[in-house]
Amino acid sequence: MQGRLSPAKTTAADVVVTATLTLETRREGFSEITADLTRFLAEIEAGDGALLLYLRHTSASLVIQENADPDVRTDLTTALRRLAPADAGWVHDTEGADDMPAHVKTMLTGVSLHVPVTAGKLELGTWQGVYLAEHRAQPHRREVILQFIGGRKDAGRS
Amino acid sequence: MQGRLSPAKTTAADVVVTATLTLETRREGFSEITADLTRFLAEIEAGDGALLLYLRHTSASLVIQENADPDVRTDLTTALRRLAPADAGWVHDTEGADDMPAHVKTMLTGVSLHVPVTAGKLELGTWQGVYLAEHRAQPHRREVILQFIGGRKDAGRS
Amino acid sequence: MQGRLSPAKTTAADVVVTATLTLETRREGFSEITADLTRFLAEIEAGDGALLLYLRHTSASLVIQENADPDVRTDLTTALRRLAPADAGWVHDTEGADDMPAHVKTMLTGVSLHVPVTAGKLELGTWQGVYLAEHRAQPHRREVILQFIGGRKDAGRS
Repeated sequence: MQGRLSPAKTTAADVVVTATLTLETRREGFSEITADLTRFLAEIEAGDGALLLYLRHTSASLVIQENADPDVRTDLTTALRRLAPADAGWVHDTEGADDMPAHVKTMLTGVSLHVPVTAGKLELGTWQGVYLAEHRAQPHRREVILQFIGGRKDAGRS
Repeated sequence: MQGRLSPAKTTAADVVVTATLTLETRREGFSEITADLTRFLAEIEAGDGALLLYLRHTSASLVIQENADPDVRTDLTTALRRLAPADAGWVHDTEGADDMPAHVKTMLTGVSLHVPVTAGKLELGTWQGVYLAEHRAQPHRREVILQFIGGRKDAGRS
Repeated sequence: MQGRLSPAKTTAADVVVTATLTLETRREGFSEITADLTRFLAEIEAGDGALLLYLRHTSASLVIQENADPDVRTDLTTALRRLAPADAGWVHDTEGADDMPAHVKTMLTGVSLHVPVTAGKLELGTWQGVYLAEHRAQPHRREVILQFIGGRKDAGRS
Protein backbone atom coordinates (compact mmCIF):
# COMPACT_ATOMS: atom_id res chain seq x y z
CA MET A 1 0.00 0.00 0.00
CA GLN A 2 1.45 3.38 -1.01
CA GLY A 3 0.45 6.30 1.17
CA ARG A 4 0.26 10.04 0.56
CA LEU A 5 2.86 12.23 2.31
CA SER A 6 2.04 15.80 3.33
CA PRO A 7 4.72 18.51 2.94
CA ALA A 8 7.25 18.31 5.77
CA LYS A 9 7.63 20.98 8.46
CA THR A 10 10.99 21.54 10.16
CA THR A 11 11.61 22.90 13.65
CA ALA A 12 14.85 23.28 15.56
CA ALA A 13 15.24 20.56 18.22
CA ASP A 14 16.13 23.06 20.91
CA VAL A 15 15.08 21.69 24.27
CA VAL A 16 14.06 18.74 26.38
CA VAL A 17 11.62 19.94 29.05
CA THR A 18 10.82 17.44 31.82
CA ALA A 19 8.21 17.39 34.60
CA THR A 20 6.51 14.75 36.75
CA LEU A 21 2.73 14.37 36.80
CA THR A 22 1.42 12.76 40.01
CA LEU A 23 -2.02 11.18 40.05
CA GLU A 24 -4.12 9.47 42.72
CA THR A 25 -6.14 6.55 41.36
CA ARG A 26 -9.18 5.20 43.21
CA ARG A 27 -9.65 1.72 41.80
CA GLU A 28 -9.15 -0.42 38.68
CA GLY A 29 -10.08 1.49 35.53
CA PHE A 30 -9.14 4.20 33.02
CA SER A 31 -8.57 7.88 34.00
CA GLU A 32 -8.12 10.45 31.25
CA ILE A 33 -5.01 12.64 31.65
CA THR A 34 -5.23 14.57 28.37
CA ALA A 35 -6.05 17.86 30.16
CA ASP A 36 -2.96 17.48 32.38
CA LEU A 37 -0.79 17.08 29.30
CA THR A 38 -2.34 20.14 27.65
CA ARG A 39 -1.67 22.15 30.82
CA PHE A 40 1.99 21.04 30.85
CA LEU A 41 2.48 22.07 27.21
CA ALA A 42 0.90 25.48 27.86
CA GLU A 43 3.03 26.13 30.98
CA ILE A 44 6.30 25.40 29.18
CA GLU A 45 5.26 27.32 26.04
CA ALA A 46 5.87 24.29 23.81
CA GLY A 47 5.95 24.82 20.06
CA ASP A 48 6.48 21.89 17.65
CA GLY A 49 7.92 18.57 18.75
CA ALA A 50 6.98 15.36 20.54
CA LEU A 51 5.68 14.68 24.03
CA LEU A 52 7.15 11.52 25.58
CA LEU A 53 5.26 9.91 28.49
CA TYR A 54 6.70 7.36 30.90
CA LEU A 55 4.90 5.65 33.80
CA ARG A 56 7.11 4.59 36.73
CA HIS A 57 5.06 1.54 37.77
CA THR A 58 4.55 -2.16 36.98
CA SER A 59 0.85 -2.57 37.79
CA ALA A 60 -0.63 0.38 35.86
CA SER A 61 -0.13 1.53 32.27
CA LEU A 62 -0.55 4.28 29.67
CA VAL A 63 -3.15 3.78 26.96
CA ILE A 64 -4.44 5.94 24.09
CA GLN A 65 -8.09 5.15 23.48
CA GLU A 66 -11.53 6.43 22.53
CA ASN A 67 -12.74 9.26 24.75
CA ALA A 68 -16.33 9.47 23.46
CA ASP A 69 -18.41 6.54 24.78
CA PRO A 70 -17.48 5.56 28.39
CA ASP A 71 -18.76 2.03 27.61
CA VAL A 72 -15.55 1.54 25.63
CA ARG A 73 -13.43 1.84 28.80
CA THR A 74 -15.75 -0.56 30.62
CA ASP A 75 -15.25 -3.10 27.84
CA LEU A 76 -11.47 -2.52 27.78
CA THR A 77 -11.36 -3.30 31.52
CA THR A 78 -13.41 -6.45 30.90
CA ALA A 79 -11.12 -7.49 28.03
CA LEU A 80 -8.01 -7.15 30.22
CA ARG A 81 -9.68 -9.15 33.04
CA ARG A 82 -10.41 -11.95 30.58
CA LEU A 83 -6.82 -11.93 29.25
CA ALA A 84 -5.32 -11.91 32.76
CA PRO A 85 -7.83 -13.51 35.14
CA ALA A 86 -7.28 -13.30 38.92
CA ASP A 87 -7.90 -17.04 39.43
CA ALA A 88 -5.37 -18.34 36.88
CA GLY A 89 -3.09 -20.09 39.37
CA TRP A 90 -0.26 -17.54 39.49
CA VAL A 91 2.94 -18.40 41.41
CA HIS A 92 3.40 -14.78 42.57
CA ASP A 93 0.45 -14.17 44.94
CA THR A 94 2.01 -12.58 48.04
CA GLU A 95 0.76 -9.08 47.21
CA GLY A 96 -2.89 -10.02 46.67
CA ALA A 97 -4.95 -11.76 43.99
CA ASP A 98 -5.08 -8.61 41.84
CA ASP A 99 -1.30 -8.07 41.74
CA MET A 100 -0.06 -10.63 39.21
CA PRO A 101 -2.97 -9.95 36.81
CA ALA A 102 -2.00 -6.25 37.08
CA HIS A 103 1.59 -7.06 36.02
CA VAL A 104 0.32 -9.03 33.01
CA LYS A 105 -2.03 -6.20 31.99
CA THR A 106 0.87 -3.72 32.27
CA MET A 107 3.09 -5.92 30.09
CA LEU A 108 0.37 -6.10 27.41
CA THR A 109 -0.39 -2.37 27.32
CA GLY A 110 2.93 -0.67 28.17
CA VAL A 111 4.34 2.20 30.22
CA SER A 112 6.04 4.28 27.49
CA LEU A 113 4.52 6.21 24.56
CA HIS A 114 4.67 9.54 22.72
CA VAL A 115 2.25 11.99 21.11
CA PRO A 116 3.26 14.56 18.44
CA VAL A 117 2.83 18.26 19.29
CA THR A 118 2.16 21.10 16.82
CA ALA A 119 2.18 24.73 17.99
CA GLY A 120 1.86 23.51 21.57
CA LYS A 121 -1.16 21.27 20.88
CA LEU A 122 -1.32 17.47 21.08
CA GLU A 123 -1.91 15.95 17.63
CA LEU A 124 -4.45 13.43 18.96
CA GLY A 125 -7.01 12.02 16.56
CA THR A 126 -10.63 13.16 16.84
CA TRP A 127 -11.64 10.31 19.17
CA GLN A 128 -8.37 9.84 21.04
CA GLY A 129 -7.65 10.56 24.70
CA VAL A 130 -4.61 9.64 26.80
CA TYR A 131 -5.42 7.42 29.78
CA LEU A 132 -3.72 6.18 32.92
CA ALA A 133 -4.99 2.61 33.33
CA GLU A 134 -4.96 1.48 36.97
CA HIS A 135 -4.85 -2.32 37.20
CA ARG A 136 -4.86 -2.70 41.01
CA ALA A 137 -8.14 -2.84 42.98
CA GLN A 138 -7.07 -0.31 45.67
CA PRO A 139 -6.14 3.41 45.32
CA HIS A 140 -2.54 4.15 44.31
CA ARG A 141 -0.33 7.20 43.77
CA ARG A 142 1.10 7.08 40.23
CA GLU A 143 3.86 9.13 38.60
CA VAL A 144 4.11 9.91 34.89
CA ILE A 145 7.28 11.59 33.61
CA LEU A 146 6.50 14.05 30.80
CA GLN A 147 9.22 15.15 28.37
CA PHE A 148 8.72 17.60 25.55
CA ILE A 149 11.43 17.44 22.88
CA GLY A 150 11.39 20.19 20.26
CA GLY A 151 11.20 23.96 19.92
CA ARG A 152 9.59 26.70 22.01
CA LYS A 153 6.57 28.61 20.77
CA ASP A 154 7.43 31.28 18.17
CA ALA A 155 10.83 29.68 17.60
CA GLY A 156 11.90 29.57 13.95
CA ARG A 157 10.19 27.18 11.55
CA SER A 158 11.23 26.68 7.95
CA MET B 1 23.02 -11.20 31.43
CA GLN B 2 25.80 -8.79 30.45
CA GLY B 3 25.70 -7.56 26.87
CA ARG B 4 28.34 -6.20 24.52
CA LEU B 5 28.20 -2.47 23.69
CA SER B 6 29.40 -1.18 20.32
CA PRO B 7 31.32 2.13 20.18
CA ALA B 8 28.92 5.09 20.42
CA LYS B 9 28.26 7.50 17.55
CA THR B 10 27.25 11.09 18.28
CA THR B 11 25.19 13.39 16.06
CA ALA B 12 23.89 16.86 16.74
CA ALA B 13 20.16 16.83 17.56
CA ASP B 14 19.39 19.60 15.10
CA VAL B 15 15.85 19.25 13.86
CA VAL B 16 12.41 17.78 14.29
CA VAL B 17 10.89 17.21 10.84
CA THR B 18 7.18 16.33 10.78
CA ALA B 19 4.84 15.09 8.04
CA THR B 20 1.55 13.20 7.87
CA LEU B 21 1.23 9.92 5.96
CA THR B 22 -2.33 9.17 4.83
CA LEU B 23 -3.34 5.62 3.93
CA GLU B 24 -6.53 4.00 2.66
CA THR B 25 -7.13 0.56 4.14
CA ARG B 26 -9.44 -1.95 2.47
CA ARG B 27 -10.30 -4.40 5.23
CA GLU B 28 -8.98 -6.01 8.42
CA GLY B 29 -5.30 -6.95 8.09
CA PHE B 30 -1.69 -5.78 7.95
CA SER B 31 -0.37 -3.32 5.31
CA GLU B 32 3.36 -2.67 5.11
CA ILE B 33 4.34 1.02 5.20
CA THR B 34 8.15 0.62 5.30
CA ALA B 35 8.55 2.05 1.76
CA ASP B 36 6.56 5.16 2.72
CA LEU B 37 8.88 5.75 5.67
CA THR B 38 11.97 5.30 3.48
CA ARG B 39 10.53 7.83 1.00
CA PHE B 40 9.92 10.35 3.82
CA LEU B 41 13.49 10.01 5.11
CA ALA B 42 14.90 10.50 1.59
CA GLU B 43 12.74 13.57 0.89
CA ILE B 44 13.84 15.34 4.07
CA GLU B 45 17.51 14.30 3.67
CA ALA B 46 17.60 12.69 7.10
CA GLY B 47 20.98 11.73 8.55
CA ASP B 48 21.26 10.02 11.97
CA GLY B 49 18.47 10.08 14.52
CA ALA B 50 15.15 8.43 15.34
CA LEU B 51 11.88 8.22 13.42
CA LEU B 52 8.81 8.52 15.66
CA LEU B 53 5.50 7.20 14.32
CA TYR B 54 2.07 8.02 15.74
CA LEU B 55 -1.31 6.73 14.52
CA ARG B 56 -4.30 9.05 15.11
CA HIS B 57 -6.93 6.31 15.55
CA THR B 58 -8.42 3.95 18.14
CA SER B 59 -9.35 0.97 15.95
CA ALA B 60 -6.10 0.45 14.02
CA SER B 61 -2.50 0.19 15.21
CA LEU B 62 1.21 0.23 14.32
CA VAL B 63 3.10 -3.06 14.46
CA ILE B 64 6.67 -4.10 13.61
CA GLN B 65 6.68 -7.68 12.36
CA GLU B 66 8.15 -10.23 10.00
CA ASN B 67 7.93 -9.21 6.35
CA ALA B 68 9.08 -12.50 4.80
CA ASP B 69 6.29 -15.10 4.99
CA PRO B 70 2.79 -13.58 4.49
CA ASP B 71 1.37 -16.49 6.52
CA VAL B 72 2.75 -14.74 9.60
CA ARG B 73 0.36 -11.79 9.10
CA THR B 74 -2.55 -14.20 8.56
CA ASP B 75 -1.73 -15.87 11.88
CA LEU B 76 -1.30 -12.51 13.64
CA THR B 77 -4.79 -11.53 12.48
CA THR B 78 -6.12 -14.87 13.76
CA ALA B 79 -4.36 -14.41 17.10
CA LEU B 80 -5.91 -10.96 17.59
CA ARG B 81 -9.38 -12.30 16.69
CA ARG B 82 -9.01 -14.99 19.35
CA LEU B 83 -7.85 -12.48 21.98
CA ALA B 84 -10.70 -10.06 21.17
CA PRO B 85 -13.60 -12.05 19.71
CA ALA B 86 -16.55 -10.25 18.11
CA ASP B 87 -19.14 -12.28 20.05
CA ALA B 88 -17.77 -11.66 23.56
CA GLY B 89 -20.79 -9.73 24.86
CA TRP B 90 -19.38 -6.19 24.67
CA VAL B 91 -21.41 -3.32 26.18
CA HIS B 92 -20.27 -0.90 23.44
CA ASP B 93 -21.90 -2.24 20.25
CA THR B 94 -23.50 0.80 18.61
CA GLU B 95 -20.81 1.08 15.91
CA GLY B 96 -20.95 -2.54 14.74
CA ALA B 97 -19.79 -5.94 16.00
CA ASP B 98 -16.22 -5.33 14.80
CA ASP B 99 -15.78 -1.99 16.61
CA MET B 100 -15.18 -2.98 20.23
CA PRO B 101 -12.85 -5.88 19.25
CA ALA B 102 -10.94 -3.30 17.17
CA HIS B 103 -10.48 -1.06 20.24
CA VAL B 104 -9.17 -4.01 22.28
CA LYS B 105 -6.73 -4.99 19.50
CA THR B 106 -5.49 -1.39 19.33
CA MET B 107 -4.96 -1.28 23.11
CA LEU B 108 -2.90 -4.51 22.95
CA THR B 109 -0.70 -3.46 20.01
CA GLY B 110 -0.39 0.34 20.35
CA VAL B 111 -0.39 3.49 18.23
CA SER B 112 3.07 4.92 19.06
CA LEU B 113 6.55 3.58 18.27
CA HIS B 114 9.97 4.61 16.95
CA VAL B 115 12.68 3.19 14.69
CA PRO B 116 16.36 4.30 14.76
CA VAL B 117 17.78 5.93 11.61
CA THR B 118 21.43 5.84 10.46
CA ALA B 119 22.57 7.90 7.46
CA GLY B 120 18.92 8.26 6.41
CA LYS B 121 18.15 4.53 6.55
CA LEU B 122 15.82 2.72 8.95
CA GLU B 123 17.75 0.40 11.27
CA LEU B 124 15.19 -2.40 10.92
CA GLY B 125 16.31 -5.96 11.56
CA THR B 126 16.69 -8.32 8.59
CA TRP B 127 13.14 -9.67 8.88
CA GLN B 128 11.37 -6.56 10.16
CA GLY B 129 8.80 -4.43 8.37
CA VAL B 130 6.58 -1.64 9.73
CA TYR B 131 2.86 -2.32 9.38
CA LEU B 132 -0.38 -0.45 9.70
CA ALA B 133 -2.80 -2.97 11.23
CA GLU B 134 -6.43 -2.26 10.29
CA HIS B 135 -8.80 -3.80 12.84
CA ARG B 136 -12.13 -2.71 11.29
CA ALA B 137 -13.86 -4.81 8.62
CA GLN B 138 -14.59 -1.89 6.25
CA PRO B 139 -12.15 0.45 4.41
CA HIS B 140 -10.88 3.42 6.42
CA ARG B 141 -8.65 6.46 5.84
CA ARG B 142 -5.80 6.39 8.39
CA GLU B 143 -3.26 9.07 9.33
CA VAL B 144 0.24 8.38 10.68
CA ILE B 145 2.30 11.33 11.93
CA LEU B 146 5.99 10.87 11.13
CA GLN B 147 8.65 12.80 13.06
CA PHE B 148 12.35 12.57 12.44
CA ILE B 149 14.49 13.83 15.33
CA GLY B 150 18.22 14.18 14.66
CA GLY B 151 20.64 15.62 12.15
CA ARG B 152 20.51 16.24 8.39
CA LYS B 153 22.60 14.21 5.99
CA ASP B 154 26.28 15.24 5.88
CA ALA B 155 25.90 17.12 9.14
CA GLY B 156 28.79 16.69 11.58
CA ARG B 157 29.36 13.33 13.28
CA SER B 158 32.04 12.66 15.88
CA MET C 1 -8.82 13.19 37.29
CA GLN C 2 -6.60 16.25 37.71
CA GLY C 3 -2.96 15.54 38.47
CA ARG C 4 -0.23 17.56 40.16
CA LEU C 5 2.59 18.86 37.95
CA SER C 6 6.10 19.31 39.33
CA PRO C 7 8.15 22.36 38.23
CA ALA C 8 9.62 21.81 34.74
CA LYS C 9 13.36 21.42 34.10
CA THR C 10 14.81 22.46 30.75
CA THR C 11 17.92 21.05 29.05
CA ALA C 12 19.36 21.79 25.64
CA ALA C 13 18.61 18.97 23.16
CA ASP C 14 22.22 18.80 22.02
CA VAL C 15 22.98 15.29 20.84
CA VAL C 16 21.72 11.93 19.69
CA VAL C 17 24.20 9.26 20.84
CA THR C 18 23.69 5.78 19.37
CA ALA C 19 25.18 2.36 20.17
CA THR C 20 24.19 -1.27 19.68
CA LEU C 21 23.86 -3.66 22.61
CA THR C 22 24.32 -7.31 21.64
CA LEU C 23 22.99 -10.06 23.90
CA GLU C 24 23.07 -13.86 23.79
CA THR C 25 19.87 -15.43 25.10
CA ARG C 26 19.75 -19.05 26.28
CA ARG C 27 16.08 -19.96 26.17
CA GLU C 28 12.57 -18.53 26.50
CA GLY C 29 12.35 -16.03 29.36
CA PHE C 30 13.16 -12.56 30.69
CA SER C 31 16.76 -11.23 31.01
CA GLU C 32 17.34 -7.92 32.77
CA ILE C 33 19.40 -5.40 30.77
CA THR C 34 19.15 -2.42 33.14
CA ALA C 35 22.87 -2.61 34.08
CA ASP C 36 23.86 -2.52 30.39
CA LEU C 37 21.80 0.64 29.91
CA THR C 38 23.38 2.26 32.98
CA ARG C 39 26.84 1.42 31.62
CA PHE C 40 25.98 2.99 28.23
CA LEU C 41 24.78 6.22 29.89
CA ALA C 42 27.95 6.42 32.01
CA GLU C 43 30.26 5.82 29.03
CA ILE C 44 28.70 8.58 26.95
CA GLU C 45 28.48 11.00 29.92
CA ALA C 46 24.75 11.48 29.45
CA GLY C 47 23.05 14.32 31.32
CA ASP C 48 19.29 14.92 31.05
CA GLY C 49 17.18 13.50 28.23
CA ALA C 50 15.53 10.29 27.09
CA LEU C 51 16.94 6.85 26.30
CA LEU C 52 15.23 5.19 23.31
CA LEU C 53 15.52 1.40 22.95
CA TYR C 54 14.79 -0.56 19.79
CA LEU C 55 14.99 -4.35 19.33
CA ARG C 56 15.80 -5.56 15.79
CA HIS C 57 13.84 -8.83 15.97
CA THR C 58 10.34 -10.27 15.52
CA SER C 59 10.41 -13.14 18.03
CA ALA C 60 11.74 -11.33 21.12
CA SER C 61 10.67 -8.09 22.78
CA LEU C 62 11.46 -5.30 25.27
CA VAL C 63 9.46 -5.19 28.50
CA ILE C 64 9.61 -3.01 31.61
CA GLN C 65 8.57 -5.05 34.62
CA GLU C 66 9.06 -5.80 38.31
CA ASN C 67 12.63 -6.72 39.21
CA ALA C 68 12.02 -7.80 42.83
CA ASP C 69 10.33 -11.23 42.92
CA PRO C 70 11.56 -13.59 40.13
CA ASP C 71 8.21 -15.42 40.36
CA VAL C 72 6.72 -12.45 38.49
CA ARG C 73 8.80 -13.26 35.39
CA THR C 74 7.81 -16.92 35.63
CA ASP C 75 4.15 -15.90 35.67
CA LEU C 76 4.64 -13.41 32.81
CA THR C 77 6.11 -16.24 30.70
CA THR C 78 3.13 -18.43 31.63
CA ALA C 79 0.70 -15.63 30.75
CA LEU C 80 2.25 -15.18 27.30
CA ARG C 81 2.16 -18.96 26.67
CA ARG C 82 -1.56 -18.99 27.46
CA LEU C 83 -2.24 -16.01 25.17
CA ALA C 84 -0.21 -17.53 22.30
CA PRO C 85 -0.20 -21.33 22.69
CA ALA C 86 2.10 -23.46 20.56
CA ASP C 87 -0.70 -25.86 19.57
CA ALA C 88 -3.18 -23.29 18.27
CA GLY C 89 -3.20 -24.45 14.66
CA TRP C 90 -0.99 -21.74 13.13
CA VAL C 91 -0.57 -21.61 9.33
CA HIS C 92 3.08 -20.49 9.62
CA ASP C 93 4.89 -23.51 11.12
CA THR C 94 7.97 -23.99 8.91
CA GLU C 95 10.37 -22.53 11.51
CA GLY C 96 9.24 -24.71 14.43
CA ALA C 97 6.28 -24.87 16.81
CA ASP C 98 7.65 -22.05 18.96
CA ASP C 99 8.10 -19.56 16.10
CA MET C 100 4.56 -18.30 15.41
CA PRO C 101 3.73 -18.04 19.15
CA ALA C 102 6.94 -15.97 19.46
CA HIS C 103 5.72 -13.55 16.75
CA VAL C 104 2.38 -13.14 18.55
CA LYS C 105 4.11 -12.51 21.90
CA THR C 106 6.34 -9.90 20.22
CA MET C 107 3.32 -8.16 18.69
CA LEU C 108 1.62 -7.98 22.11
CA THR C 109 4.64 -6.65 24.02
CA GLY C 110 6.56 -4.57 21.47
CA VAL C 111 10.11 -3.82 20.31
CA SER C 112 10.30 -0.04 20.90
CA LEU C 113 10.23 1.96 24.15
CA HIS C 114 11.93 4.81 25.99
CA VAL C 115 13.00 5.63 29.56
CA PRO C 116 13.64 9.19 30.85
CA VAL C 117 17.16 10.06 32.03
CA THR C 118 18.11 12.64 34.69
CA ALA C 119 21.77 13.52 35.35
CA GLY C 120 22.77 10.34 33.53
CA LYS C 121 20.50 8.05 35.56
CA LEU C 122 17.48 6.09 34.34
CA GLU C 123 14.26 7.39 35.91
CA LEU C 124 12.90 3.90 36.53
CA GLY C 125 10.35 3.41 39.28
CA THR C 126 11.41 1.65 42.49
CA TRP C 127 10.37 -1.79 41.27
CA GLN C 128 11.07 -1.41 37.56
CA GLY C 129 13.74 -3.15 35.51
CA VAL C 130 14.20 -3.25 31.73
CA TYR C 131 14.05 -6.75 30.24
CA LEU C 132 14.81 -8.47 26.98
CA ALA C 133 12.09 -11.11 26.61
CA GLU C 134 13.22 -14.08 24.52
CA HIS C 135 10.22 -15.89 23.04
CA ARG C 136 12.07 -18.67 21.14
CA ALA C 137 13.03 -21.95 22.85
CA GLN C 138 16.63 -22.01 21.56
CA PRO C 139 19.51 -19.54 22.22
CA HIS C 140 19.61 -16.45 19.97
CA ARG C 141 21.84 -13.42 19.44
CA ARG C 142 19.76 -10.25 19.89
CA GLU C 143 20.57 -6.61 19.07
CA VAL C 144 19.11 -3.60 20.88
CA ILE C 145 19.81 -0.14 19.46
CA LEU C 146 20.25 2.44 22.24
CA GLN C 147 19.81 6.14 21.52
CA PHE C 148 20.24 8.89 24.07
CA ILE C 149 18.63 12.20 23.06
CA GLY C 150 19.42 15.19 25.24
CA GLY C 151 22.34 17.03 26.80
CA ARG C 152 25.76 15.95 28.06
CA LYS C 153 26.59 15.93 31.77
CA ASP C 154 27.32 19.40 33.18
CA ALA C 155 25.74 21.02 30.14
CA GLY C 156 23.54 24.03 30.93
CA ARG C 157 20.22 23.56 32.69
CA SER C 158 17.79 26.36 33.43
